[in-house]
Amino acid sequence: MAHIKGINHIAIVVEDIEDALGFWRDAFGLELSHVEEVPDQRSVVAFLPTDDAEIELVKPVDDGSGVARYLQRRGPGVHHICFEVDDIEACLENLRQRGVTLINETPTIGTGGKKIAFVHPKSTHGVLVELYEVTPSELEIRVQRARQLADRVMARGQVAMSAAMGFLRGLRNGDRDEETGTTRRP
Amino acid sequence: MAHIKGINHIAIVVEDIEDALGFWRDAFGLELSHVEEVPDQRSVVAFLPTDDAEIELVKPVDDGSGVARYLQRRGPGVHHICFEVDDIEACLENLRQRGVTLINETPTIGTGGKKIAFVHPKSTHGVLVELYEVTPSELEIRVQRARQLADRVMARGQVAMSAAMGFLRGLRNGDRDEETGTTRRP
Repeated sequence: MAHIKGINHIAIVVEDIEDALGFWRDAFGLELSHVEEVPDQRSVVAFLPTDDAEIELVKPVDDGSGVARYLQRRGPGVHHICFEVDDIEACLENLRQRGVTLINETPTIGTGGKKIAFVHPKSTHGVLVELYEVTPSELEIRVQRARQLADRVMARGQVAMSAAMGFLRGLRNGDRDEETGTTRRP
Repeated sequence: MAHIKGINHIAIVVEDIEDALGFWRDAFGLELSHVEEVPDQRSVVAFLPTDDAEIELVKPVDDGSGVARYLQRRGPGVHHICFEVDDIEACLENLRQRGVTLINETPTIGTGGKKIAFVHPKSTHGVLVELYEVTPSELEIRVQRARQLADRVMARGQVAMSAAMGFLRGLRNGDRDEETGTTRRP
């Protein structure tokens, strides 16, 4: 069976990114890595890493997406949980065999070649679950972002670098998989 | 500012534990650590650790608790996200100063002396947030449970021990805080 490594991120749908950052960054103290438009999801996303999993604040850019409909129907809150798996195809095949309803029968390819697929909440007891398999090119993007984050934090003279440094340490300590070139978290 | 270490667990409210384990354990492949009644929450909770954060399936035992009312109102799904912090009092004081609405003004003391407090979803943009500070005696309980889990997994002849071993490795590699006797995750 494919191994579930852990929680990659929790996506929270919000009405306004800046307003939501007033809690998650300013009051709660998470570090903002970056904000980017994600055309696939018709959303703007703010990424706030912790020592392990990431909080993603998602704001729909129009009324037509699944995220927008969720916001209209249920208001702001947790939209989905994303789990990192070592073999997404094996994981999907296993779920299919057990009668689990999948939103994506095969993985879609995102930024940096990452593979993602969603499981329908009716099979998970109300939770929209995203499966995610990391790829070598995406790891390079992640390292670059962690470095940029560390640079920004240092430039502001802060000492709370643990999010970025913890991530880099995780990559350094990881067991490298010679076949795929991916790095497993310790 | 208090440091947010990462996500400790995600609590999912369900109507039936065994039914929900049909997805989360049997189909999805998470390891079940243990199931216990939690009188404080008037719930039965199934604990499913990943390499880092844990999934908790929560079933109310009566109709009177907050979890039960949530289930009646919104159906099964994510109930709250719990973040581990290094100093819960400092974290609460900072949130209070910034006008964030707290459900617990001071931490409540749970099993093993752990300190927990909830932040109201109206201040977090729809997410019920639990704050959590680990204590030395609770760490001992955690190590004991990880050992029991490893024993059970080995007894069944499985090789997927990474959840329990990852946790023990985390404890071994952690920096020990001489003042409080707590162990920080690397």
